[in-house]
Amino acid sequence: VPGPELTIGVDLGGTKLLAGAVDASGTVLACERRVISGLPLPDLLAVTVAAVEKVREAVPESADAVCGFGIPALMDRRSGDAVRCVHLPLDGVDFGARIGPSLGVEVTVDNDANCAMLAEWRFGAARGASHAAMLTLGTGIGGGLILDGRLYRGALGAAAEMGHAPIDYDGPPCFGGCPGRGCLEALCSGSALARDALALARMLPDSRLGRDLAAGSAITGERVTELAHDGDPDARGLLWSLGEKLGVGLAAIAMTLNPEVLIVGGGVMAADELVLEPARAELRRRAMDPGRSAGVAAAALGPEAGMIGAALLAAGMDGTA
Amino acid sequence: VPGPELTIGVDLGGTKLLAGAVDASGTVLACERRVISGLPLPDLLAVTVAAVEKVREAVPESADAVCGFGIPALMDRRSGDAVRCVHLPLDGVDFGARIGPSLGVEVTVDNDANCAMLAEWRFGAARGASHAAMLTLGTGIGGGLILDGRLYRGALGAAAEMGHAPIDYDGPPCFGGCPGRGCLEALCSGSALARDALALARMLPDSRLGRDLAAGSAITGERVTELAHDGDPDARGLLWSLGEKLGVGLAAIAMTLNPEVLIVGGGVMAADELVLEPARAELRRRAMDPGRSAGVAAAALGPEAGMIGAALLAAGMDGTA
Repeated sequence: VPGPELTIGVDLGGTKLLAGAVDASGTVLACERRVISGLPLPDLLAVTVAAVEKVREAVPESADAVCGFGIPALMDRRSGDAVRCVHLPLDGVDFGARIGPSLGVEVTVDNDANCAMLAEWRFGAARGASHAAMLTLGTGIGGGLILDGRLYRGALGAAAEMGHAPIDYDGPPCFGGCPGRGCLEALCSGSALARDALALARMLPDSRLGRDLAAGSAITGERVTELAHDGDPDARGLLWSLGEKLGVGLAAIAMTLNPEVLIVGGGVMAADELVLEPARAELRRRAMDPGRSAGVAAAALGPEAGMIGAALLAAGMDGTA
Repeated sequence: VPGPELTIGVDLGGTKLLAGAVDASGTVLACERRVISGLPLPDLLAVTVAAVEKVREAVPESADAVCGFGIPALMDRRSGDAVRCVHLPLDGVDFGARIGPSLGVEVTVDNDANCAMLAEWRFGAARGASHAAMLTLGTGIGGGLILDGRLYRGALGAAAEMGHAPIDYDGPPCFGGCPGRGCLEALCSGSALARDALALARMLPDSRLGRDLAAGSAITGERVTELAHDGDPDARGLLWSLGEKLGVGLAAIAMTLNPEVLIVGGGVMAADELVLEPARAELRRRAMDPGRSAGVAAAALGPEAGMIGAALLAAGMDGTA
């Protein structure tokens, strides 16, 4: 396995960043967390550099280690620029060129969901597979693909956006600036779950979600999951329905790419089997062999996946070398 | 470019085979055609061998050339067996092992739609691309993928079955033994077109299709295309609607794989721009950049694509070497 012993990975999310020194076995030796929501670009860069410096102090052997960054944006492989970055002010910014000089080491930048896929492939739920797909169900839906034993990026670096693959011809409008309808993100993201929960709360005022709404509480995906784990049938129904639609999306991916395993991560997966069970059942119901037999597994590395994957990226361990 | 000067390609379809000697520039030096529908396996093998012998007679330099076969089945890469072959008696048959000894040369076997993709990539509408997808709209829908400059087969050889990717959650039941609904094949295949045309003929008895039906004529996809080229608004409407759904499928592929070009071939493409125009429009309407900007082009090589691709396959020109 190529790559230096120790690299630094930074995962920039819409609200926070995680920066850590990661060794060749995927162990996180030190980790820093910063809130970054709403920061203008110069402050975002300064906070990021400071977090990396802090990691370097904590792990002196990492002082000269290369740095990898996962950012919530499409990457244009031609220019190196970030494109379509909804939650951070990185649209049109060559992030690597901007932050590299302040760090004094070689930096690598890729999409955050690609990084999470890399980490799950090397150390998590897709370990040992040569063909794997990952969906990250958060506010939006990110995706990553390992095809023929390497990270697949597509012609311009914009591949694996399965969140914006339509699976329902006349489905609801999508989120995040997508002009489509019935995309996976429009049906299975945290935003979709919150939308459907609010509709249910309005329609069934005597339900627990309905009483939450009447009491002025926010109707969130997290609350739905909490109620579902508590046994609430309406909340369970919402997650079951989300899982069925997820299964249709998994069927599309499985028939197109014939992966060994399909990984599902992200905040919505706090619901775990309440979502995965109907998803698996729907995949088996919709798809033919061997697609229907693809494994379906929860992501194993949790919120550190993006950071660990960014470190793998810096180490050149994306399978393309 | 690797590969010998001259190879033989054989495309086995549900009703006929084409066998030809093909040179390194894709030129077909001699071609044989045989009807094979309904033949039991021993006869199918004998007819195929005889067709290859005839090609060898016509082009003596091809006597020792390796042979490639495209067959309308999934291939299991582990066993070499054909699986799920609806139109020919090849289920569970290791076709290469059965036909190789009779031909006395090395043979290679792959899915027919993979072969068509290979040919369009080397010599047709996807020439020069490193990332391309192809859909073959016939009785069913076949698919092929070129990813990172090579034919993509997936974990078990069953990839690129985009015909069975669902794009309409509550859509009509699929064909060809697929348990799904709303798959691309259920919406955009020749079979789907014939189904929708029959429904229209019954609903609108005064339409041209309705009068065809009353007169006892078969309501086929070919007839719809003929009427559409003749200006019939109902037939044009059917093709427009098919094209829109095709565009949704292209959006799913474009967002997942970020290809440079999406190729559409097969019998339904006799309708050409009557299908491609709405498909392109729907792709642009549904998808985000850069997926929405992927090229959409008609296949360029016509019914010989599978045969030429099978010859490329034999020559090892699938990009994986």
